[in-house]
Amino acid sequence: MPKVILYIATSLDGKIARSDGSVDWLESLPNPNGLDYGYAEFLAGIGTTIMGRKTYEVVLGFGVDWPYVGLQSYVATSDQAYVTSTPDTFRVSYDLAAFVGQLKSTTEKDIWLIGGGELIRYFLEKDLLDEMILTIFPTILGEGIQLFPGHLKESNWQLMDIKSFETGIVNLTYQRLK
Amino acid sequence: MPKVILYIATSLDGKIARSDGSVDWLESLPNPNGLDYGYAEFLAGIGTTIMGRKTYEVVLGFGVDWPYVGLQSYVATSDQAYVTSTPDTFRVSYDLAAFVGQLKSTTEKDIWLIGGGELIRYFLEKDLLDEMILTIFPTILGEGIQLFPGHLKESNWQLMDIKSFETGIVNLTYQRLK
Repeated sequence: MPKVILYIATSLDGKIARSDGSVDWLESLPNPNGLDYGYAEFLAGIGTTIMGRKTYEVVLGFGVDWPYVGLQSYVATSDQAYVTSTPDTFRVSYDLAAFVGQLKSTTEKDIWLIGGGELIRYFLEKDLLDEMILTIFPTILGEGIQLFPGHLKESNWQLMDIKSFETGIVNLTYQRLK
Repeated sequence: MPKVILYIATSLDGKIARSDGSVDWLESLPNPNGLDYGYAEFLAGIGTTIMGRKTYEVVLGFGVDWPYVGLQSYVATSDQAYVTSTPDTFRVSYDLAAFVGQLKSTTEKDIWLIGGGELIRYFLEKDLLDEMILTIFPTILGEGIQLFPGHLKESNWQLMDIKSFETGIVNLTYQRLK
């Protein structure tokens, strides 16, 4: 059965973006050898992405080509009239937990929870998250959108893997302890 | 010259304590082999501790013996009448940046910044922090006192060391990039 994996970059102070959604600080870390921090390997196991509407619009605002070509992408929103505008991208506006359950029983590859904070809160609340891969950047941002906003359900995790890179980035992989 | 080191345990979601200051979740992580996560080694290099008044009172509230025996401890407070009640513990109520500068030029062993969030913010703002050792517990607490509260000065760090332990704890050591 596929896993639901939160795979996300965070600052040392747990921010996933500046308050205006910008992620310039991710790109400004010197990376002379063009490391991908395991992204290609991760992506090879993914069939589906899920993201919140705000995150979707942040990605659209980057002004780059749709980064999830070849994947089925789902945008969670309560707006039943919301229209997506990118390849293989669909709105999910009904019971998300039921949708994820259905997805897990009908697809084979893993499901990438892209974010943002509100959707992460929901997935934790409903115990829908199986794994987290946190890519920790060596920056204290000081201000911004929190990876883990307040009012989350308490949960325990098992450390599965650590990878560090010459640029100072650390990938921590955790599996949900049930 | 001694370094100022923030050495602190944090949850995966960047909390250092529950909202009421309690740290039961630190003690409830199974640790059958009694690992100290490098604490004794760290402590051997420390001569001085600095903590905020609220943190001091949280430590007093633990109802255990004073944990910093043998060290000079300083409690930062704007209350010039504040009275400390533990061994070798002194109030600092004047310019803390000047005090830290003086401490660095008159002592040899490193200075442990114990916390909490407000003092960490001040040390970052004034560029007083040389090193951070973050002990990351595999728990999402969901609610509590933030290690890095908002409105921090942005700063970049260099990853110096990673240690992981069988209990799922990871120690990340960073040095300030100036």
